[in-house]
Amino acid sequence: MLELLSEHACFGGVQRFFRHQSSAIGLPMRFSVFIPAHADGARLPALFYLAGLTCTEETFMTKAGAQRHAAEHGIVLVAPDTSPRGANVPGEADSWDFGVGAGFYLDATQQPWATHYRMESYLHELRALVLDHSPVDGARVGIFGHSMGGHGALTLALRRPDLFRTVSALAPIAAPMRCPWGRKAFTGYLGADERTWARHDASALMATMQAPFPDGILVDQGLADKFLAEQLYPEAFEEACAQAGQPLTLRRHAGYDHGYYFIATFVADHLAWHAARL
Amino acid sequence: MLELLSEHACFGGVQRFFRHQSSAIGLPMRFSVFIPAHADGARLPALFYLAGLTCTEETFMTKAGAQRHAAEHGIVLVAPDTSPRGANVPGEADSWDFGVGAGFYLDATQQPWATHYRMESYLHELRALVLDHSPVDGARVGIFGHSMGGHGALTLALRRPDLFRTVSALAPIAAPMRCPWGRKAFTGYLGADERTWARHDASALMATMQAPFPDGILVDQGLADKFLAEQLYPEAFEEACAQAGQPLTLRRHAGYDHGYYFIATFVADHLAWHAARL
Repeated sequence: MLELLSEHACFGGVQRFFRHQSSAIGLPMRFSVFIPAHADGARLPALFYLAGLTCTEETFMTKAGAQRHAAEHGIVLVAPDTSPRGANVPGEADSWDFGVGAGFYLDATQQPWATHYRMESYLHELRALVLDHSPVDGARVGIFGHSMGGHGALTLALRRPDLFRTVSALAPIAAPMRCPWGRKAFTGYLGADERTWARHDASALMATMQAPFPDGILVDQGLADKFLAEQLYPEAFEEACAQAGQPLTLRRHAGYDHGYYFIATFVADHLAWHAARL
Repeated sequence: MLELLSEHACFGGVQRFFRHQSSAIGLPMRFSVFIPAHADGARLPALFYLAGLTCTEETFMTKAGAQRHAAEHGIVLVAPDTSPRGANVPGEADSWDFGVGAGFYLDATQQPWATHYRMESYLHELRALVLDHSPVDGARVGIFGHSMGGHGALTLALRRPDLFRTVSALAPIAAPMRCPWGRKAFTGYLGADERTWARHDASALMATMQAPFPDGILVDQGLADKFLAEQLYPEAFEEACAQAGQPLTLRRHAGYDHGYYFIATFVADHLAWHAARL
């Protein structure tokens, strides 16, 4: 049921890649887990990482260098894939920002997507699976992500603050209703009625809440990010947090772009942030 | 002449990718450089990294997480590609362990390879190019590498200890004359006369020398490396170092395999090793 595809010793712990049949998606899915060295019987905090457009369950584990810091803090890392694979929806692989590799961490309500493109439900299935099979303390689970995955981390945490104790993001799509990536995805997955979109827009969600994460939220954004002006809108999330009384640490970094060199540079701060609060 | 393909802010410094017309190779070549933050006019030590079979100038910079440590120690990192590209030698892309992606860091003497497959001369050309264009102190240059690149680092350093002050390796092909990868490459590039091979075999070279690196050589080897028994022969290099009076720190790591999770785990130790000696 849970098929171990590969494992690698890494920073004194172990990096594993799995495949399993997902009931939420109705297809096989892949994910990766890093488990640091730990005492027998210990229950560790866990941090889910959601990746951006075109990425897989492998991207973060390969490129971010996060295992060094997870080992240091004793945190389990979990990374899912970014969409179903093999759903065979016509045209699903035609664009890099919709369909395969672009599941947007929500459950589609519109056919032909609604059958398999159910990434929000999948994340909850994966969370339960990881709790069953790993030395993780279910009360100490956080989530973070990058770009589309930053959107996913913020919205999943805001929709279920009971399940995720901490949340942070790197260059998130912070107001998807306002940007081309988000409008395309929401139209396709959720339909034309924009009232259904707000449930999956971090800024719109936050504006309806009262300080859901009193320990704060950390967001890093590069100022040389070519997607910043058109796609990301951190200022909208900043405004919504102010309205909600939500403490937010939004750091703007001169010179940094949207890629994994930016992520690798700041991932240590995110691991330390979650470790201090989990 | 030196074409900047991309640059990315990274750990307070900058990660750059270049293309240039190589006179040694007679074709365009790509390489990558990480330059940490530094004072105006400062001259920094530099460390060349040679990658393994199938890799490019990008692999190490993307997967090893070395920039964090290079920034900390103030070291410039340089990574070349692993072979000429576009030489159009018949069959050059037919195997993953010979030809494209497998230049073995030597100058081929046999046609049709001898025209373009001149990676040792290329490394010296690149070293001069980097010294001309980067804030590097030419007296403080080290070299290291992985697998085929570990072979490259050891042999280039042993052949020119005047140019490389420090050398280390991760899972190097330490006695290529004895292993299938090495015998195939040497036969193809150097011909059937094995007497010419010893000049490019780290263990054979070391056995002819007297402690060429009195500050020591660092080698890390994973014991779950599937190539260890047939291809790597660290024990041959260990024996040659003993014979040469060469101080060697050979660390054998239970559980670690041949891949970049192994490299990422130990790269910090290599950067610190070189920083302390450069």
